[in-house]
Formats: sequence, structure tokens, C-alpha cells
Amino acid sequence: MSAGKDVRGDRSAAGPPQPFFHSRWVPAPAHVRDLGPDVGLPAGFRAAGVACGIKPSGNPDLGLLVCDSPNPVSAARFADTGTPAAPVLLSRERCTLSALRVVLANSGCANAATGRRGLEDATKTQGAAAIAVGAQPEEVLVGSTGGISDYLPVENMLRGILDARGSLRREGDADFQYAIQTTDAFEKRANLEVELTSGVVRLSAQCKGAGMISPRFATMLCFAQTDAALAPETAELLLGVCLKRSFDRCTVDGQLSTNDTAVLMCSGESGVALAPESEDELRFGDAFDALMRQLAILMVADGEGARRIGRVVVRGGHQPTVEIAARAVANSPLVKTALHGGDPNWGRVVQAVGGALGGGGLNRAPLAMDISLENTQVCSASVAVPYDEAALTRAIGRPEVEYEIVLPGEGAETEVFFSDLSHEYVTINADYTT
Amino acid sequence: MSAGKDVRGDRSAAGPPQPFFHSRWVPAPAHVRDLGPDVGLPAGFRAAGVACGIKPSGNPDLGLLVCDSPNPVSAARFADTGTPAAPVLLSRERCTLSALRVVLANSGCANAATGRRGLEDATKTQGAAAIAVGAQPEEVLVGSTGGISDYLPVENMLRGILDARGSLRREGDADFQYAIQTTDAFEKRANLEVELTSGVVRLSAQCKGAGMISPRFATMLCFAQTDAALAPETAELLLGVCLKRSFDRCTVDGQLSTNDTAVLMCSGESGVALAPESEDELRFGDAFDALMRQLAILMVADGEGARRIGRVVVRGGHQPTVEIAARAVANSPLVKTALHGGDPNWGRVVQAVGGALGGGGLNRAPLAMDISLENTQVCSASVAVPYDEAALTRAIGRPEVEYEIVLPGEGAETEVFFSDLSHEYVTINADYTT
Repeated sequence: MSAGKDVRGDRSAAGPPQPFFHSRWVPAPAHVRDLGPDVGLPAGFRAAGVACGIKPSGNPDLGLLVCDSPNPVSAARFADTGTPAAPVLLSRERCTLSALRVVLANSGCANAATGRRGLEDATKTQGAAAIAVGAQPEEVLVGSTGGISDYLPVENMLRGILDARGSLRREGDADFQYAIQTTDAFEKRANLEVELTSGVVRLSAQCKGAGMISPRFATMLCFAQTDAALAPETAELLLGVCLKRSFDRCTVDGQLSTNDTAVLMCSGESGVALAPESEDELRFGDAFDALMRQLAILMVADGEGARRIGRVVVRGGHQPTVEIAARAVANSPLVKTALHGGDPNWGRVVQAVGGALGGGGLNRAPLAMDISLENTQVCSASVAVPYDEAALTRAIGRPEVEYEIVLPGEGAETEVFFSDLSHEYVTINADYTT
Repeated sequence: MSAGKDVRGDRSAAGPPQPFFHSRWVPAPAHVRDLGPDVGLPAGFRAAGVACGIKPSGNPDLGLLVCDSPNPVSAARFADTGTPAAPVLLSRERCTLSALRVVLANSGCANAATGRRGLEDATKTQGAAAIAVGAQPEEVLVGSTGGISDYLPVENMLRGILDARGSLRREGDADFQYAIQTTDAFEKRANLEVELTSGVVRLSAQCKGAGMISPRFATMLCFAQTDAALAPETAELLLGVCLKRSFDRCTVDGQLSTNDTAVLMCSGESGVALAPESEDELRFGDAFDALMRQLAILMVADGEGARRIGRVVVRGGHQPTVEIAARAVANSPLVKTALHGGDPNWGRVVQAVGGALGGGGLNRAPLAMDISLENTQVCSASVAVPYDEAALTRAIGRPEVEYEIVLPGEGAETEVFFSDLSHEYVTINADYTT
């Protein structure tokens, strides 16, 4: 009775791309320094990743992350889906989300579409993690990723929790990252140093996600830690705002997951406090924003089968309209296959926007839109304009491709990052059997 | 300055599948007989298809269809897109859609995103066709399909129109069909005989479409002819209702075209008239409904790269909700790749519906849905139930696969037909260069 699961193999455990800030769309703030993958977590955090037999491959599949601070502060967000997985339901309804101390995350099983038993299983593992590290159950956020409809192997997880407890260490973030990956081709992880006016703080994050990625915030697992001291309201505000500018602006396949979870945890162990509405809050916010945006772009770059990233920027007079247009382009299989083929096929952009915004019958004039690819205008008021085809084809073959669409009116603007659609996406998602 | 076009090669000119009514989802009415591909058009119609050099391949690319009746009756529908192509704009705004006499259709160039010049070009070809066959310009519907942003080669078309005029004949429907195809792998065409209480009439149709196919009515070119005599209101009603139950219920890639056009033309030459609200109107309506539904399913079966058709039926208490859920499943790349791989991966159905219908936050309970694949229930109230995995996997490997989703409540129901997502879709849409 295990059919229907999403048994995706592990793809690789390659290290994170270096340097961390490498997208032209995310300039690193001057007061932020990339410390590289090996410096370990901010003060007050320890992590571990172990294999406990959830994945048939025997690869690591259970991650544990603990904040040792006496007064941890946190904030969390979850997928806005009608079919949330058990760990999402349990975490959002039973946890003290502003004071989380522990993250227990597993790959290889999403614990989704598992009903009452799924909730009981998640509760058991939450309780075991709490006992293992000396926390309260409501301080333990649980996150799962993997195949939908399988039950958690609870006994394996209980053994894995004890095993992971014995391995917790400041430098455990790489192991933790590896243990939460599924079809990820490389790590999405960073360790930053942020210079504030009142001192220097650390900021780290580990993130997984490659398929079932759609623009409606979290859309993955993302765990961020800092040793700065933040008020709960500040953590809440920062996480909310920065998710809207990062993971909320991404799509691989337009498919919202059942399990998405994003958490910011603050130990305060640096002794540097962020006063609300201070310059340091802004500086820290800039750093967190750049971190989340670069992680989100990494997730798109690691979209299943992806070899190119597109960014579509839409400007116009009406926010809902630019939003619909941007997502229509970013999720169009015709635009995505053209991006894959390195083809400046802007007719498909016209078609996608026209189809999404609809007609309105005889009394409405056709949509007049300007389109530029890589700063070369190809279309004015929905009509072709001359351009240097060879130069554009060269530009469109690079790893990051920008599409700009201008609709009538002014004042509204949005962006969506998206991956191309390739043979490998089909292979990953079709060519295996359960 | 020709980049951006959608230069898709011809795929094939294979004949239509036989017998015409072969889908289990379209039972042929007892009073309808399939006459096969070679009997020619209903009385009062002639057609031709010629090559005039629009397609680089030299394949046929211009079709002409004429109704010789003194009092033709017709109805037409067009894509509800914000970016209609020039032929759509011209036809819907300048034609007498209830009394069309001529169809001029070309493949190899969509005449879309071509602005004022595109309208002028379409008008020139419309006028030439009118002169060539002795009709008024407003009696000539023009339809184009092919690459977006290219201008029509008007001189070629004028030569092609004269050439086609010389070839017009009752048996010209196969040539006409061939001339309007693009990436179609086989003909979508039928010649039916319909037994009414007051006599026997003929009903034929030719249709093209394989990509840029989405549920919002027409989504292709479809031309239907009958020698029955219909009142304009009857033709209008029948076309509207039957499109809603056929092409409106289809998706290949969720992409609405700029050029979709569907036309029903009635010569009245059989001498059999359909009285409004008569039994014969019902009988003819049943036949037209079956014709349109089977053509729509053929179009999905010929979806770019498709090897399987899915039908998702959603029942529940709220029409907009079942509609959103059905389209979310039919357009989900994860569901479509699972269908391609013959994988009974119903977790992706849960995810697609949950993602589309959204969460609503803490106060809303998770969506409870029942899911059956090929009449085997796999999930009750969003929780897995036991089933015979081997039997289901066998069932799911057949050419037509049915998904049934039951949401809370009663009274609303919808269906969408969809193709799988394959490597070949990516090849067709990515692996060529302009």
C-alpha cells in the first residue's frame, strides 16, 4: 500500500556554489561578508544530520538543530496550501513559534495525506526530540520533505534523534543541510558576518528545494539562524517581509508543496541587540534580505532539470495585473522551453500575457505591451520592432536571462524568478516507477 | 528581424484515426454514422488546400473553403485572449459572423503581434479571397496559425488563393485539413451522417491543434459544415454550448493561443430544416456535441509529445472550486509527468488541488478530498486507503486514464481532458533554433 509516493532519488551532495553572492540580481551589501561553508553556525546553535533509514539509498535523512540560548526568539511561516502536511499542521498549531528552540527535520517522507496517524507520528517524533535535548515539545518545530502519502517510520526516527543528539556541534550545518535534501543537486547554505553599528553578528541559513516550487511564499524548507538578539516582533517582521521578496517570487514548476516551512531563529549570544526601527535593524534587514534572495535564486537554479534562470519584471498601472502577467510568463511551459533552448521567442511572452489577462470581448482593445529581453526591446505596443538578432541570441544563451514587460499605466511592479523546462525535469518526474 | 517566431516544423500528414468515435468518453449516438474520411463535404461545400510558400518545408499552407448555398448560415467563436491576432480581430469585428460564406485559413504564420500592418495584410487576403470566389469581404472569415510576430507573405497568399480557387471541390476537405496543420501528428477530421426524424443530413469538420492548447473555449482552428438548414440563432446556440463541452474542457499545456477560431457553417442544401426546440434540433445537437468532443479529445491525444490522455472529473458543492481544482490537476506538470510515466502518483493530485485552492490560515481545516484513479479509490478524506497496487499500475498504463476527485458538498461537477508531459514536448518546443 505504498504506491502513490514520490520516491525521488538523491541527486548529489555537491557543496554550495562559491562565492555565495553570485547572481547579478542580488548585490551583496557592503557590510556583509561571506565566511564560506566551513565556519560553522552562529554562537548558540548546534546541528547534526544522520542517516536513520528513511531513504532507501541509506543517505542522511534526519536533521536536528538546537538553540542553546536561555531566551531564544524565532518566527516561522508555512505553505498556504489547502492540504498541509502533518508536520505543518502540528508546528503551526502546537508550537510556540516566537520562541522555538529546536528544529527536527527529515527527508525521504513528507508525512502528507496521512491523516490522524500522520499527526500522531509527527507528535511522537516532536516529543522524542524534546526529551532528547531537554526542551518542551512546543519548542520543537518539525519539518518533513519527500514522498506524499507515506507514513513516517517512527522507530527509525526515534533512533535517528538519539544518534543526532550525540553528533550535535557548531559545525554541524553541512550535515544538517545534507540530511534535509531530496532532489537538490547542490547545497543551498550560507554563513555570513554582518557588521552593525553596535557590533558584528553572524547569520546562517540552510535551505532545500528543487521541485514543487511555486510563488506563494515559503515553498521549501529554509532554516536561518543568527546570534543577534531580536525582539519577537522584529523577527516576525523581518521573516515576513524578506520571504515576500525572495521565496514568494520563485517558481520552478508552479506547484505549491504541502510541506513548506521557513524559520528564523535568534540566539542573542553575540550580545548585540537590534533595537526596533534602528539603523542596525535596517542593516541586519538588508543582510537577511540578500541572504533570502540569493537562497531563493539558488533554489530556482537548482530547479529540477534547470540549466538557466529567468527573471521577469512586469511594470504597469495595476498590481494584480502585473502579478498575474509575471506568474503567467514564469509558469508558461512555452516560455520555459524557449528559455531552455536559448531561443529569444518573445511571441510566447505575448501569448502568455494575453492568455492570462484575457480578452473581454469586442469592446476592448488588444493589450499594448512593450517587451525587452536582456535590455533589448523586441516589441513595442505588442508589435515587433527591429533588433540585432545575433546579439540577442548570444545574450539569451547566458545562465541568467531577464525579461521586462511594460503594461499600460504606472506605479505597479513585480518580479518572478523562474527556471527553464528541460528533458531532465521530465526524466526526474516521469521516468521512475514506484 | 524575424527572430521570435515559432518556427515549428510539420510533423506528419497521417490520416485521421479510425474509427472516428473511439474514445470511451464519447459514445457515438445511435443515429450518427461515421462515413469515413473519403466521402467529401456536405452538399453545398467545396474546399481546397495548396502550398504557396509560407512554410519553408514547401508543405501545403493555404486552405480555402466555400459554401455555395444562396443563404448560408453560420456562427463563430474566437480566443478570449488579451492579445488576439490580426485575423481574429478582423474576423470578429468586420465579418457577418451569422452568414459566412468563405473560410481562408493559412498555416506557417499566425499574423500575431503584427499591429496595423498585420491588420492590413489580413484585410488584403480577405478581399482577394472574396473577389476570387465572388463573395463580399465581410462573408470571408480569415484564420491563421503558425509563428507569432511574423508578417504574412501577402503576395504568396494572393497567388495561393487563385491556385486554391482552381482546386475547389467537394472532396477537398483532406487537402484543406492538411493545409491548416502545424505540429499536428495526424488529421483531426470527420464526415458524419445524422439521421433526423425529417430526413438525413451530413456533418463534417476539420480541426488543427497540438500546442498552445488551454481550457478557454476554441483554442485551435476548427471548421464544421452541415447541409442541414439552421436558423442563425440555432447555429449560435449549438456552437456555443458544444464548444463549452469540448474544446473548452481541454488542455495540452495550459497556454491560450492568440489565434483560436471555431466556425459552424450551414448550407441548408439537404432541404432538411431544424425547427427550434424540435426533436431534430436535439438529435442534431447530440451529433454535433459528439463530433466536437471527439475532435477535442483527438486534439489532446495529439498534444505535442503526448502519448496518453487523462480525464479529471471533479465533484463538489461549489462550481468555481471544482473548476479551479480540475484545471490545477490538468495543468500540473507533476501530474502530467506522472501520467506520462504510467505512475499512480495520487499524492501529486492532493498537492495540486491543495495548492490551487489555498490554505486560509489557522482557522481552516485541511481539505478533505476523495480520489479515485480508474475507479479505484486511493484516498479518502485526503488520507491513503489500501488498494491493489499492481492492478492500479496496469490500469494507469492504458491510453486513457480517468481521475475522479470528490470535494465536500454536492451539486457542482466539471471535467477537463489533458495530455501528459513528455520529453518530446520539450524537444518540440526547445530544441530548435530560429
